[in-house]
Amino acid sequence: MNHFKPVALEHASRLVNHGPTVLVTSAHGGRRNVMAAAWSMPVEFTPPRIALVIDKKTWTRELVAASGAFGICLPGAALVDLTYAVGSASGRSVDKFAHHGIVAKPGPRLGMPVLETGCAAWLECRLLPEPHTEDAYDTCFGEVVAAAADARIFAGGHWRFGDDNTELQTIHHIGAGNFVRAGGILRAAPA
Amino acid sequence: MNHFKPVALEHASRLVNHGPTVLVTSAHGGRRNVMAAAWSMPVEFTPPRIALVIDKKTWTRELVAASGAFGICLPGAALVDLTYAVGSASGRSVDKFAHHGIVAKPGPRLGMPVLETGCAAWLECRLLPEPHTEDAYDTCFGEVVAAAADARIFAGGHWRFGDDNTELQTIHHIGAGNFVRAGGILRAAPA
Repeated sequence: MNHFKPVALEHASRLVNHGPTVLVTSAHGGRRNVMAAAWSMPVEFTPPRIALVIDKKTWTRELVAASGAFGICLPGAALVDLTYAVGSASGRSVDKFAHHGIVAKPGPRLGMPVLETGCAAWLECRLLPEPHTEDAYDTCFGEVVAAAADARIFAGGHWRFGDDNTELQTIHHIGAGNFVRAGGILRAAPA
Repeated sequence: MNHFKPVALEHASRLVNHGPTVLVTSAHGGRRNVMAAAWSMPVEFTPPRIALVIDKKTWTRELVAASGAFGICLPGAALVDLTYAVGSASGRSVDKFAHHGIVAKPGPRLGMPVLETGCAAWLECRLLPEPHTEDAYDTCFGEVVAAAADARIFAGGHWRFGDDNTELQTIHHIGAGNFVRAGGILRAAPA
């Protein structure tokens, strides 16, 4: 059973507020790719905008430049091996979706590949061209135009991390294939 | 006992690779400030460079523009309340260090306030002026010129999250004063 539900755009930046490692998807001219990226962040809630580092040497970067779009998927803890694997090899000469048996569907607005099985959420983004920062810092900006999340862990605009959804909890790369899992809610005293 | 040890600059970006919520410190002309920021990411390992969103309406932004520098401190789980508190009020009319009893010392290279008690690490950064992205996306770039970490959780260039250092584990804001704690190492299969 698929538990994915649309996320309102005004809540989309919350999906990456806590710094998860993500999968970046891309597609153009019949080719597609997926890579892992630890370096992303929101830059605005409304409109929902994010920044993402994509090395200029990568195949993903070529596809994103050509299509003006990219997808972001948040792998849950169950996808640690897959995340590391797609982050360790180029898709220039192999379709990583086929190679790893990844099921993806086209996103609703831009047709970017989005993953749901094992993922907590996805976002479809339109590239906001910024030639200088793309060149100087490999930093690409994008505006989220569609988003969805597994309602078992993100619903009503809020994350719900609990003991019943550990497999969907986001992962955060600390290097060399080691990840920490986000979990264990800490509630601050009212400010 | 203080367990902070210098971190080699080639390892500095690893400190924020996993998306922790941070404290941003600033100082200029006898004034100083500290605020919380969930939106930061590395953009380069060598030289170590990061991007950080600082709203242009904030006092921090004024101080950073004036001094050309900022500090980044990583609060551990024990500092959840303080992190939320300094992220919820402006320092324009109050010294938040004094108000909250925060002990800070000047960083070794730029004199930015750095916190050690309760923190996992800190980085001192020189602003890389980028007027367009600062204006359009509130996104500031910086180069790390000094860094240090509590050796009980980051040593030899690597994070060591374990059951013995939960109070130092990084926190990741999911909204409205709720944080998830990074912990629970997941090791990916060799790629």
